[in-house]
Amino acid sequence: MIRTPRDLLGYAYSPIPNHYESLQSIKSSFHLANPYKSQPINLSFHLENHCASSKPINSSEFHVRQQKLAETLHSLNASAYIAEPGASAQYFGNISLTSWKLSERPLLLIITPVVVDDKVKANISILTPYFEATRAKLLPVPFDSVRYIEWAEDANPYEIAAAEILAEGNVFMDDASRLFIFDGFRKALPRAIISPVPPEIKELRQRKSEAELDLLKCANEATLLAIRNVHKRMYVGMRESEARKMMSIALQEVGLQNGGCLTLFGENAALPHGSGTDRELGEFDFALFDCGGNLHGYISDVTRTVILPQSWQQIPAEHHKIWNIVQFTQTVASRSAIAGAIAQDVDTAARSFLRQTGYDTYFTHRLGHGIGLEGHEEPYLRGGSLDVIKIGHTFSNEPGIYIEGKVGVRLEDCFYINAQGRPVFFTEGVGGQAGSPWDP
Amino acid sequence: MIRTPRDLLGYAYSPIPNHYESLQSIKSSFHLANPYKSQPINLSFHLENHCASSKPINSSEFHVRQQKLAETLHSLNASAYIAEPGASAQYFGNISLTSWKLSERPLLLIITPVVVDDKVKANISILTPYFEATRAKLLPVPFDSVRYIEWAEDANPYEIAAAEILAEGNVFMDDASRLFIFDGFRKALPRAIISPVPPEIKELRQRKSEAELDLLKCANEATLLAIRNVHKRMYVGMRESEARKMMSIALQEVGLQNGGCLTLFGENAALPHGSGTDRELGEFDFALFDCGGNLHGYISDVTRTVILPQSWQQIPAEHHKIWNIVQFTQTVASRSAIAGAIAQDVDTAARSFLRQTGYDTYFTHRLGHGIGLEGHEEPYLRGGSLDVIKIGHTFSNEPGIYIEGKVGVRLEDCFYINAQGRPVFFTEGVGGQAGSPWDP
Repeated sequence: MIRTPRDLLGYAYSPIPNHYESLQSIKSSFHLANPYKSQPINLSFHLENHCASSKPINSSEFHVRQQKLAETLHSLNASAYIAEPGASAQYFGNISLTSWKLSERPLLLIITPVVVDDKVKANISILTPYFEATRAKLLPVPFDSVRYIEWAEDANPYEIAAAEILAEGNVFMDDASRLFIFDGFRKALPRAIISPVPPEIKELRQRKSEAELDLLKCANEATLLAIRNVHKRMYVGMRESEARKMMSIALQEVGLQNGGCLTLFGENAALPHGSGTDRELGEFDFALFDCGGNLHGYISDVTRTVILPQSWQQIPAEHHKIWNIVQFTQTVASRSAIAGAIAQDVDTAARSFLRQTGYDTYFTHRLGHGIGLEGHEEPYLRGGSLDVIKIGHTFSNEPGIYIEGKVGVRLEDCFYINAQGRPVFFTEGVGGQAGSPWDP
Repeated sequence: MIRTPRDLLGYAYSPIPNHYESLQSIKSSFHLANPYKSQPINLSFHLENHCASSKPINSSEFHVRQQKLAETLHSLNASAYIAEPGASAQYFGNISLTSWKLSERPLLLIITPVVVDDKVKANISILTPYFEATRAKLLPVPFDSVRYIEWAEDANPYEIAAAEILAEGNVFMDDASRLFIFDGFRKALPRAIISPVPPEIKELRQRKSEAELDLLKCANEATLLAIRNVHKRMYVGMRESEARKMMSIALQEVGLQNGGCLTLFGENAALPHGSGTDRELGEFDFALFDCGGNLHGYISDVTRTVILPQSWQQIPAEHHKIWNIVQFTQTVASRSAIAGAIAQDVDTAARSFLRQTGYDTYFTHRLGHGIGLEGHEEPYLRGGSLDVIKIGHTFSNEPGIYIEGKVGVRLEDCFYINAQGRPVFFTEGVGGQAGSPWDP
């Protein structure tokens, strides 16, 4: 069931004209020697910034998040929510790990619900080391009246923060917090019940708003455009490191920050998270790019396994077959990821299809992960997960077949669950899933 | 009590000849215009690698650490020690955050004590995601028979690890672990008592061996040599960013990895952890460099506040005075940091001296921190700490005076408590404490 190039091109959503002859023109656009050797530093693809019109999350959306959190805390009889700088503090208070690095001195976002005139409102405090308070006050926390609680070097920060929190009842802590912070509060609030955040609070960040979906859409589209661009410039004999560098440049040009790709050639791609060698691209090798970048805090994640067009006749038939199986597995999985489905069942759908092909034992990782402010976040599409898929959830869909020492293929597109409860690929606007190993 | 240049040079342990004339020659080695403008990329100081003969911690030392941990666990009736990749896992199992990045999938070092023929021995296991086991087995864990416990994507990693741990008794977890890991074990081992590591285990990593002290010595010496070298090449009008870049290059040349400096000119130095501007160096400004680098995993930390030599007559008298007060505070504090002393009393010694000068309210942070595999680690020299200072402890000694909008001075040398219980500066071999703002 190897597709002919005609079928492959016909299958794609690609803007490339749908006829066999076009393959010849694609081929001719590839180079067999390194065209960049003379100018490795000034390499540029002259790509357009695909996300130039994207805007960061605005402050009214932050207020909505804080309000929802306060209401949820109130409904759970909780007196406080506590988070270290990181994805959750970024979601509720715009305090990311880039705006404040973790150190041994706690800086914490503390949100407490208060009832005023029968209405629940959010109170926002930042616990900050006293001597860093000037810098902490520069944090762009989107709230009208942030309260800064300063702790001096000779004080116990947890006791000082605890004085602002009810001594009894529930206190919820972001579960990426470090154990010593949790332990500090446990000692400072001996009568409270301090626990990692419950599902009701996790769900707030998991289900994305329109503005978040727009950012994720643009980031994933841009990532795919960058991959396609670099793919056109690949040549036999190039090294993984060079392709990786090209990808970083392309990702930057299309408008993403901190972009990068896991870049693996040939059998190296059989180790899903990489090898350590810097392999050359052979004429009949697959090249796997697992790429991501950052758009106003939101992360993209796209994987393509590609091949040079001149190689289509020579690569082993089994590799063709594996690629097509992975591609179809992605489609199968996508169909089952609808609102109301259980996360593990989507993973099972992919795995069951693979079992029919005999390749299921080579699919060694889960089908997908949530994505947003973190590249991998809850909920996960994995066996054993009873999470229910809901509108606004976002996931990667990334089946793979990895035969160590031989070949590795992974295809990954992220998707969201739309208002109708159906899955939509973030890459849809630029053609969606890969068409063929020639046509990423 | 401003020192004359003669006094200042006389005071220093510096290799610079002890007479006033030498100041003239130092002056003449400074440039008033940027000598690097034409070649910013190929900048090199041609410094010797000061630590070329330093060796990483060897495997027999790792075995000693593991053995001591097993004995301590046994004595505390504990069935396991658990750590995520990081400084503690690096200490006991050579698994640093550079060798394994944290992700949502736990990879854990688990050490359990076993009694064989009445002798306690250490059992070392690595809990690893199944699909990353190949890469996990490449981790250079210094132990003869590491056991790899693999968890599949659809399994609960904590339940799988828990099957290897006694269901009752104490389990100690490194306190930098993330809360969700702790929570996972708490659910998987409901009858065990899972807590952050107690002081007996913390002490193992806190008190340094001869090999560790040698690495810290060389790293701190090299850092100071790099600062002195860059200081000689500073000029009026240079930007903080340029000086910072010069420092990075110098730190690399002297043999340190990932070296860098907080670099603050003039009133910017009054914010102990930095501003956001890229200020130019004025002729009468102090420049503060807080520098560190990595030598085989061990971190250096040296701060110098310097001035261009031609400025000594023009800088405000109060700034001279402040520099000298900070310098003497460091000496005072050092004298009180002896084995058996209480950590808070050393901080108090520094602060009491400062009170006499009237500048105590401008010393807004603790006196010092422990240092080793982490740049800041326990124990701390801070008010409120009842930790007892012991042989093999290492600390920074870094008093400072910060008058916002005006001036900031900090001087920092790290020291260890030697076998006689006395403090010795790691920088001693290259002259120790700063001699003057001209003579770092």
